[in-house]
Order: sequence, then structure tokens, then C-alpha cells
Amino acid sequence: MTPHAANRVMRVARPIAGLPGPGDFTLHDAPMPEIGERELLVRTIYLSIAPGVRPLLPHAGHAPQVEREPQPADDLPNPMKIRVGERMRSGIVPSMSKFAGGTVGQVVASRHPDFAPGDYVFGGRYWQLYEAINGDASVRLDPDDLPIEADLGIVGRSAFTGWVGYRRICNAKPGEVMVISSAAGSVGMAVAALAARDGLRVIGIASGPDKCAFVTEELGAEYCIDRQREDVGQTLDRLTPAGVDIYFDNVAGALQRTLMERLKPFGRLVVCGMAAEYCGGEASTLPTDSILAKRLRIEGFVVLDYDDEYPVFRQEMAALWKAGALPYRQQIYEGLKSAPAALADCLSGRSRGGKLLVRVGEDTSKP
Amino acid sequence: MTPHAANRVMRVARPIAGLPGPGDFTLHDAPMPEIGERELLVRTIYLSIAPGVRPLLPHAGHAPQVEREPQPADDLPNPMKIRVGERMRSGIVPSMSKFAGGTVGQVVASRHPDFAPGDYVFGGRYWQLYEAINGDASVRLDPDDLPIEADLGIVGRSAFTGWVGYRRICNAKPGEVMVISSAAGSVGMAVAALAARDGLRVIGIASGPDKCAFVTEELGAEYCIDRQREDVGQTLDRLTPAGVDIYFDNVAGALQRTLMERLKPFGRLVVCGMAAEYCGGEASTLPTDSILAKRLRIEGFVVLDYDDEYPVFRQEMAALWKAGALPYRQQIYEGLKSAPAALADCLSGRSRGGKLLVRVGEDTSKP
Repeated sequence: MTPHAANRVMRVARPIAGLPGPGDFTLHDAPMPEIGERELLVRTIYLSIAPGVRPLLPHAGHAPQVEREPQPADDLPNPMKIRVGERMRSGIVPSMSKFAGGTVGQVVASRHPDFAPGDYVFGGRYWQLYEAINGDASVRLDPDDLPIEADLGIVGRSAFTGWVGYRRICNAKPGEVMVISSAAGSVGMAVAALAARDGLRVIGIASGPDKCAFVTEELGAEYCIDRQREDVGQTLDRLTPAGVDIYFDNVAGALQRTLMERLKPFGRLVVCGMAAEYCGGEASTLPTDSILAKRLRIEGFVVLDYDDEYPVFRQEMAALWKAGALPYRQQIYEGLKSAPAALADCLSGRSRGGKLLVRVGEDTSKP
Repeated sequence: MTPHAANRVMRVARPIAGLPGPGDFTLHDAPMPEIGERELLVRTIYLSIAPGVRPLLPHAGHAPQVEREPQPADDLPNPMKIRVGERMRSGIVPSMSKFAGGTVGQVVASRHPDFAPGDYVFGGRYWQLYEAINGDASVRLDPDDLPIEADLGIVGRSAFTGWVGYRRICNAKPGEVMVISSAAGSVGMAVAALAARDGLRVIGIASGPDKCAFVTEELGAEYCIDRQREDVGQTLDRLTPAGVDIYFDNVAGALQRTLMERLKPFGRLVVCGMAAEYCGGEASTLPTDSILAKRLRIEGFVVLDYDDEYPVFRQEMAALWKAGALPYRQQIYEGLKSAPAALADCLSGRSRGGKLLVRVGEDTSKP
């Protein structure tokens, strides 16, 4: 019935230098997983490309600059690094949250009373065609309510990350100036759309005219700075000479200093992602003296701490989407073998922006 | 009647390298100030030594590392630097707040309806024997309620700074581990006393056994690390192997990294002062990656933004003090000419700790 009769699994082939490239991952035949009590055998349909996985991969050459990884809130050790020979993951956190999955698929066999063959589910975690997953940590999807890939997109982990950062950390007020880096990315686009709706002055930062047009024309930003053509600092000084109230930082790197220097008194810097450093590069630091002189608040957050809020987020975003009021972009790569290229495009900014997915198997949920 | 019949004023003599020393300030005869409408002529009795003034003084040699200064919240330019030849100030902010004064004294002549000769007032700002001050920005003191120097001490600006940082920024909870640098200093002692009363596990950092004994035996800290004899990181690892919830930072410098590395997930770093950098030295920076991985909150504050809360603070501290429940230390230097040495002792940590005052003229408020 499915185009693949046997299982295939993508594994990390070797330590990776910088951007992932050909030869860094290899596709292997694998036995069909056996499922235990309360488990499901799931045929993967879509998998999510998660740039935050990059720092967890083995690095080739000199020690990477970004070595730390999210730790569980109770500070227990949690081995999240992915080693050579292991399966590649579609999300950074394999087991800490019910909402940490990175694939949607269809149940082929079930030993869990709540799921039956044919059901669509969210909850797989690996780059592979078939996966045995824990039914207790899975969510059944209703294709009549939202498209099944929505759980990797408009109500997925990246959008939830943006929502948490915007709604729970920023303390944003209408009329404030908010700058968002990677504004056309899977997290940034959710933040930009929500902030623009709320009446903030949104200034995006993205790479290339196509993504910048998406940020202004669809997401509702006042302006989007094209990093490939404009000097970010000079452009900000022209657009908002009085400075910036909030910097929603998805990239870290050198850009962070440019924004720190332009934060107003009582400004906020929300540390959401560090895309500029995931492949190596100099680790960014923040100057203490301006934190004091300008009374800044710098706050990092990790979305897996906010599981309790997921239903609130899901309801808001689904309602907006159904009303046609949630601008959104996704790009779908075809076939499991294209996943490494999708990850590289995501990390390098060469993608068209939005949420990047890989269609691993036929989407039978659609007419 | 007063021991000085004429006025004398301390001026900045030259750019200063590192710690202030002999020759950096000079005492000048000056005319008795004339007072205008709604002004008071005040004989200074006590002046407050404020280490935060140091970065506002002219620096000799290479450019200082800490150049930024607090800006008014509305971001208007505010010339707070003190230039060579100008009068030395007893507080960082000359005109931004009614509570920004740094001296207490006695009214000699008044052209303000609310003040009469003989009244004790808070509100002078300079290192001088007599000062003309704005009556509308002054506070009349009641020596029968609190000693007049209390407005530079237990209910003064330094204690208020500690109170704001502790009560409004830390989000401290009983049982949490709070580390306080300069714990025996004028800000740190207020924080330590309040936090210990509230049931936090307080660990102080101070220099020398006398100050450390004050922090533990009087302020109620669980332990005080003597920076002159102990390795801070190793000692913390022994005292609290699970890490630190809150670092109340009065010093910045290299110590900040030591504490950042030991903050628990959801830890807070309150940037209150940067004493280690006021005389120069390498500017401290904070690593972005641990802010994200550990979901830290780093927040700077400046007390002058909290004038509205001063009455709440004053009531709490005065009540504690009258009940004998507010441990407190002050050290009084005698004579205006001793002020530069007092400032140097404060900046170097050579003082006995607590609040440093200079008695400039006779305290006629006491029996």
C-alpha cells in the first residue's frame, strides 16, 4: 500500500564541519520496528526540519563554540547529543515533553487502546520511514479540523516557541518597536504575525528580497532588513532613531551586539535561538555595563517548559488560521533522502523561509 | 556657631588613574552661597560616599572600560560626567530624583516656606561645607524619629537600591540559594538582611574575616566567602553543589562568569553594581548560550526609576530598625578632607564594610 515496503533510517555518518553536506548522513535499510505494549507502529508522512538539532550533532575539527544543551528543568542529566551512527532526530528533545515530537504519520499497527490503524498521529522523533512510538506520548490528529502537517507548522513546536517568547517573555505593548531576526523563519514568522496584529511596530531581519517581501507584505511588518543588501545598524538608525524596545533574537552572533547597542532603556532581549552559532563560529557575549545603564532585561527560554500552555496556544493559532488571519509559509522537500539538504538550507538561510518539512511518505489524509 | 565660618568645596583636581589618591581632589575656599527663591542654605553635616560616582569622574590614561552612565528613562541627554575643576558629588544623579541627594545638613537660611533655620534636611549633593539647595527637592528630617544620618544609611539610597533589587527584580522564594557580592557593603547588607529574614539561603562574598563575620553573624547569611582566602567557585561547589538560584551582583568583573556558570536553570542574575570595573579593568560580558540553555533572566535596574516606592521601603526599613531587627554597619570618617580617602577605601574594599559616611560638620541633632 505504501510506496516503501521496508524500513529505512537516516543515521549520522561522521562528525560534521559547519553546514551539513553530502556524506554527513547515510540512509540505511532497517528492520520494521517491533512494537511493545502501549506502542504504535507509525508510517512517517512529514518530518520537521529543526535547526536547533545542529549543535547536538558531532562536530568535526576544533571544538564547537556552542556546546551547552537545554537541560531538564530539574537539572537531571539528559543525554541529548547525537553520536555518529545514531539515528538523526527531527527535534532537539527526544523525551522531555509530550509535544516534543517532530513527525506526523499514520498508524500501521497499534498495541494502545486509544489508537487504531489508519489514525494520523503526531509524536515520532526520527528521520526514518517507520517508527515505533509510545502511544501515551502521541497525539491523534483530526484531518477534518486541521491539515495533519499543521502539528509541525501553524500549531507546531516552532510556532509554539514563537508564541511563548512573544506572549510570555517579551512583555510587549502596542506601539513598541520590536525587531525580529530570522523573521521569515518558522519561529520568527509566528512572532511577527502576532506582534503586527497586536499593533507593535515590527521590523524584521531576513536574507534576500523574497523572504523580506513575505515579512512585510504577508506578516505585516513595517519593514524587513535584507541582511544581504543592507547594514542592519544603519538601517535601524534610520527607521527607528529612538531605538528598539524589544529584540526577539533567533540567531545570536554578531547581530546581537548591533541590537544591544540600540535597545532603549528598559529594553528587552529575548534569547530564543542562536542559529548563527549552530554550525560553529564565535560565541556571542553581552556587555554587562549596558545591561545596568539601560536597565535591560535579557531572558532565555526553552519551549518545553511551557507544555501547560500548549492548548491555549493551539486554540489561538488554529482560530486565526481558520479565519484566514494567520499568514504562514511552508516549504516541503520530497523524500527522506532530501532531509539533509533541507537541514542545510534551513541552517544557511538558503531556503525560501517559513517552516521546512520533508514529505517522507504519501499524505493519504488529503483528498 | 559652626566650626567653619567660611565655605570650603572639594573639586576634582585632575583625571584620575584607578583608585583615587592624594592630589586627585583639592579643597578650595569658596564664597558662602547666595540663595534664590525657594532655596535653602544648608550646613552639611554628613555626606554619603557613593562608589558609583567613580565611573563619572575623568579617567587618566587609556579610555576607561566602563563609560556608559545611567540615562533618564525618557532617554534625554543628561550630562552627568564630572569634569576637572568641578565640584565632587555625593551621588551619581544630581537632578533626576527627589531622593537622589547625598548629604544631610542643617538649614542656616531659608527662602522656602516649608523650611526654617535649624531644620535638618536631606538633599545636598556636593562635597562642600555649605550648599544652596532647592527646597522643593529637599526632605525635612525628624531627629526624634530616626537619626539624621539614617537618610544616608538604613533608609538611604544604597539600602533603597538593595531593597528594590531584592523586592522588585529578584523574584526570590524562600529556600532559594542567593549569592550576594559585596555582601558587607551598603547595598549588599540590606539585601542579605532582608533575604535571610525571608528564609532564603544567603551566601555572601566579601573581603576579609571581619566583613565576613559581619555577614554571617549579624546579617544572617549561611556562609560568607572571603575572596582574599577562598576560591569562590570551589567554595560554592562545596556549599551548594546543585547551583545558585539568584546572583545579586554588586561588582561584575570576573566574578560574574564564576556565578553564571553556577546558576541553576531559571536562575536570575540581578545587575545592581559593577564595583570591580569602576576604576577600569576589563569590561565583563555574559555568554549568550548559557542564557538560552539555562533559561536565565539577567536584569539591570537603577534605583532612581523607583521613586514611587520609596515610602514603602522607608516604612519597612524604619520599622525593622526600630524593632532592633535590621542589622546594620556604618563607618564615619571625620572631616571633609577625609572624603577622598573614604572613597578610595570604599572602592578598594579596604573599609570595614557597611555604609561609609563623612562627618563634615558638627552633628547638633544628637544630645
